[in-house]
Amino acid sequence: MSTAALLVIGNEILSGKVRDTNSTFLAVELRKLGVDLERIVTIPDVIETIARETRALSEAFDYVFTSGGIGPTHDDLTMDGIARAFEREIVLNQAMIDRMQRYSEKPVNDAMRKMAMIPDGAEVLDVGGLWFPVVVVENVHVFPGIPELFEKKFHSIRDRFSGVPFHLTKFYVRESESEIADVLNALLAEFPELMLGSYPKINEVDYRVLLTLESRDMAYLGRAVERLAHTLPQGVIQRIE
Amino acid sequence: MSTAALLVIGNEILSGKVRDTNSTFLAVELRKLGVDLERIVTIPDVIETIARETRALSEAFDYVFTSGGIGPTHDDLTMDGIARAFEREIVLNQAMIDRMQRYSEKPVNDAMRKMAMIPDGAEVLDVGGLWFPVVVVENVHVFPGIPELFEKKFHSIRDRFSGVPFHLTKFYVRESESEIADVLNALLAEFPELMLGSYPKINEVDYRVLLTLESRDMAYLGRAVERLAHTLPQGVIQRIE
Repeated sequence: MSTAALLVIGNEILSGKVRDTNSTFLAVELRKLGVDLERIVTIPDVIETIARETRALSEAFDYVFTSGGIGPTHDDLTMDGIARAFEREIVLNQAMIDRMQRYSEKPVNDAMRKMAMIPDGAEVLDVGGLWFPVVVVENVHVFPGIPELFEKKFHSIRDRFSGVPFHLTKFYVRESESEIADVLNALLAEFPELMLGSYPKINEVDYRVLLTLESRDMAYLGRAVERLAHTLPQGVIQRIE
Repeated sequence: MSTAALLVIGNEILSGKVRDTNSTFLAVELRKLGVDLERIVTIPDVIETIARETRALSEAFDYVFTSGGIGPTHDDLTMDGIARAFEREIVLNQAMIDRMQRYSEKPVNDAMRKMAMIPDGAEVLDVGGLWFPVVVVENVHVFPGIPELFEKKFHSIRDRFSGVPFHLTKFYVRESESEIADVLNALLAEFPELMLGSYPKINEVDYRVLLTLESRDMAYLGRAVERLAHTLPQGVIQRIE
């Protein structure tokens, strides 16, 4: 079983100017892979904060992903922060300069050279068709904030991350949480390993609560689903899927 | 100047089943108020994790907001976590029971009583029309995860949070970040207090970079806007607003 954390870096998210969609994308993708995303932390563009959070997440989780702050401007401080986290120097990566020369119509300028300054000893993963690779330092994978690029790059290296996927069954229930809480507690007492989620909805027409039952063990999940279907009050199940 | 942090509590966010919209909502609202949102942390429904993060954020920021985990089911552990963060007991709040009796058609049941168990000595803020109040412990404000309720409750108590609002000017620029990075660095050297954001866009037709200039001092912002308008290369400004 593998765990993961996402570090979102950018004043634009915290000030509400840009909506972060990379978090949800990564949550969905890691879930499919069976990797447990256990933390998402959003921080401003401050080197010391990036360094401290990167170090803490790197120690606590198997995989760390960062989003944002790798462009050529003054507020792109992710590489500096990650270098400081691992006490590495920032050095010009010649392979990246070569790649820029191959993919860009313009000659390499100062701003592009800044983007080729990455932590010493970093791993550089080729990403099909994009001149900027995925940079990996220890267990930290550095992604751009732009959603289209984040998604494209993740898909191109997703095979590196593996876990044991969950099986999921959903119950749509017509009663309120208050009315079924006792049934859920009894279910968990019998199936302590079950991941059971209970989500009240207030704008749905035909159900009031969505229940999610999950397990990495399909037979265990099947037994829990059967038990819940028999213990919920008559007629409250709108559907199971 | 006031700082703030948001603690999002819920396995459903981390597993990608539910998209967190409360973060963006709160970021936008706090920005309008001039309160600096400096951290968003998303964690699973685990009491010890809730306690540790609540304590850390409460010490580091002026206002802390929590989202989620206050319903009546087994995975609603926010009140327990916050109580542990401040080493308080969880006690039945009679005023909340009274409120439930006033607003609900049904008699108060065990699940509702669970929702009235809150940290000892918590402040209880009335929210017009809703039977469940906003609970405040030290500087921590406890909100529900359901977006409609989160938003309604925040609006009803927003006057408690005050800061000094920012003034904002946006430049839509036709050149790439690489081509204007030097101009931006020169601008910041002259206006070190300026909040300057640079956001490349890859799917826009008529511009390639959005620049945001912000300051709490309107005259300072005006001088920086004028300087940038004169130092960007001729013809690259698509518009200023």
